[in-house]
Amino acid sequence: MIHNLAVIYPSAKIGNNVSIGPFSIIYDNVEIGDNCNIGSHCELGVKSMNDVESPLIISKNSNIRSGSVFYEGSKFGENLTTGHKITVRERVTAGNNLQLGSYTDIQGNNQFGNFVKMHSNVHIGQGCVIEDYVWLFPYALIVNDPHPPSNIELYSTIRKYTVVGARVILMPGTILGEDVLVAAGSIVSGSVENGVLVAGSPAKRVCRTSQIPLRDGSKRAAYPWRRHFHRGYPEQVVLEWMDEFK
Amino acid sequence: MIHNLAVIYPSAKIGNNVSIGPFSIIYDNVEIGDNCNIGSHCELGVKSMNDVESPLIISKNSNIRSGSVFYEGSKFGENLTTGHKITVRERVTAGNNLQLGSYTDIQGNNQFGNFVKMHSNVHIGQGCVIEDYVWLFPYALIVNDPHPPSNIELYSTIRKYTVVGARVILMPGTILGEDVLVAAGSIVSGSVENGVLVAGSPAKRVCRTSQIPLRDGSKRAAYPWRRHFHRGYPEQVVLEWMDEFK
Amino acid sequence: MIHNLAVIYPSAKIGNNVSIGPFSIIYDNVEIGDNCNIGSHCELGVKSMNDVESPLIISKNSNIRSGSVFYEGSKFGENLTTGHKITVRERVTAGNNLQLGSYTDIQGNNQFGNFVKMHSNVHIGQGCVIEDYVWLFPYALIVNDPHPPSNIELYSTIRKYTVVGARVILMPGTILGEDVLVAAGSIVSGSVENGVLVAGSPAKRVCRTSQIPLRDGSKRAAYPWRRHFHRGYPEQVVLEWMDEFK
Repeated sequence: MIHNLAVIYPSAKIGNNVSIGPFSIIYDNVEIGDNCNIGSHCELGVKSMNDVESPLIISKNSNIRSGSVFYEGSKFGENLTTGHKITVRERVTAGNNLQLGSYTDIQGNNQFGNFVKMHSNVHIGQGCVIEDYVWLFPYALIVNDPHPPSNIELYSTIRKYTVVGARVILMPGTILGEDVLVAAGSIVSGSVENGVLVAGSPAKRVCRTSQIPLRDGSKRAAYPWRRHFHRGYPEQVVLEWMDEFK
Repeated sequence: MIHNLAVIYPSAKIGNNVSIGPFSIIYDNVEIGDNCNIGSHCELGVKSMNDVESPLIISKNSNIRSGSVFYEGSKFGENLTTGHKITVRERVTAGNNLQLGSYTDIQGNNQFGNFVKMHSNVHIGQGCVIEDYVWLFPYALIVNDPHPPSNIELYSTIRKYTVVGARVILMPGTILGEDVLVAAGSIVSGSVENGVLVAGSPAKRVCRTSQIPLRDGSKRAAYPWRRHFHRGYPEQVVLEWMDEFK
Repeated sequence: MIHNLAVIYPSAKIGNNVSIGPFSIIYDNVEIGDNCNIGSHCELGVKSMNDVESPLIISKNSNIRSGSVFYEGSKFGENLTTGHKITVRERVTAGNNLQLGSYTDIQGNNQFGNFVKMHSNVHIGQGCVIEDYVWLFPYALIVNDPHPPSNIELYSTIRKYTVVGARVILMPGTILGEDVLVAAGSIVSGSVENGVLVAGSPAKRVCRTSQIPLRDGSKRAAYPWRRHFHRGYPEQVVLEWMDEFK
């Protein structure tokens, strides 16, 4: 299952039932858990220039699609899934079930919870904390230098269940509460309280997200989304959500 | 003309006079017409997770540049041309002479006419219908979920000759008429009537496109563009356009 | 140091102490200076369709990261550094110490000075002049057709020390003076005088950049940035800057 045109360095640790496509490179400082699929043209464990000594850890049941690049010194929980041609730098840590869309570009020193989902072409600058069940849609962008170029970095935090729409910018030091929705194309600064929709450039409060109707004819609210959207989440998680809203 | 460091699966059907670069992979469920050029580091016929049984069909005289990924189950007319590192998912159908710029990301279930041209880094969400002679400029983005994440998808349509400027977002369910121009950076919702320029976020009607002067000193109008811009179109098409405006 | 799974065409000129990763291709019309590092999955010297006869010249001490594509007919000074998966077309000339972030897409016929730095996913249309010490942040985009599609191209110029924020669009024919700052997400047209902050869509003058405080508690100004930000510049350059502000 390891293609003979893949290049596997001798100290790489590769679990059972791992498949690796042609033209992929697994460098020395890498540990891949059982039952993983690594597509073609990938590069895992690229040497960092920043004196990272820890390995790249890809946990079991992960699926890394073709053309993706991971540096050494990052650690991912089980069931990581990526699109094609992503790049992830060093010192990233993630819980289980992270999804990263094609062309997504994750800078170093980021911290992601469980079930964080990013669509295509998301760019995460250094130093973010993104909690469980957060969604980032295509071209969402998080930056951290308030007056570039400088040595000052202000980091952003996104709390549980929050949704960042397509082509949004989170400016340096943005704090999004739980269950926030940022409308597509917005530019957000400062803090956003729980359960609010913000929109525009600069983004302003529009309403509570619970006032947004679900467009299925049911007169239910579209948010909190976990009340009606369960695709891809394990049964136990869904049962907890159903309990929460009983 | 098939490089010895390309990986060609045994059931792939490859026409006459096809060239395939080194480090490319052609999976089983692929048909490539005559006189095609497939660059290096490509992956054609990637297995879909969605039970697609139909093959990837690349018709004659196509040119797929290096690093591009196509899933099985899509079908392209003649003269497909791509930039580098594009991604195209399953169940996409296109007429002849489709152009896709580098890094362009086409999701599944899209339908394109003839002579549709996309520049770099365009992202097309699922379910779009894009008619003949439409242009999409860099970073144009079409999304389809009105309140993400949800199971509701509202699809967009772009009619003939319409031009979507750089970094535009078409929100879910947008309908652009014929000969529309969307100014760079706009965010468009709803329907736009034929022959109108819209701009801004949210995009509003500015004027008829025929009121935009061509900046060549000629006092002609810049739109409809097919009146003066003919580069890359076959003679027969250009003659029809010249007839239309006689 | 040239991997045995790299493809090196016979007329390529490769200097001393050059390393080339697996699955990279160096075509004939390429000259690589001493002490360069070319990552895996690269393609250097891609044949242009535009009758370019001059070679791709990569000067000494350059570092091209994996998955990058350069066409023939461009010339770079010493110490070029790139991220992953960039694309650079023909007839680009650059001074020394150019930095190009991952996924950056440089069209043909561009001219860059020394120490120009672009972050991830910058897209530069044809015909730009970008002077020394300019910064472009992620997703900055420069376009050149004032009424696309057409045969008219209006080129943009960015003068020394200017900073273009994340996701900015420079519209066709934009002239940014020296020491300008364009705020993230702005859309700029026309000319911007030296030392000014512009913001918004369309971008308007906000204040002089020297009125922006550096957020380090020092009561210094954040601009001109070269007064306080020296990371990555050689000692001689920094000494000149220190002299300038004595």
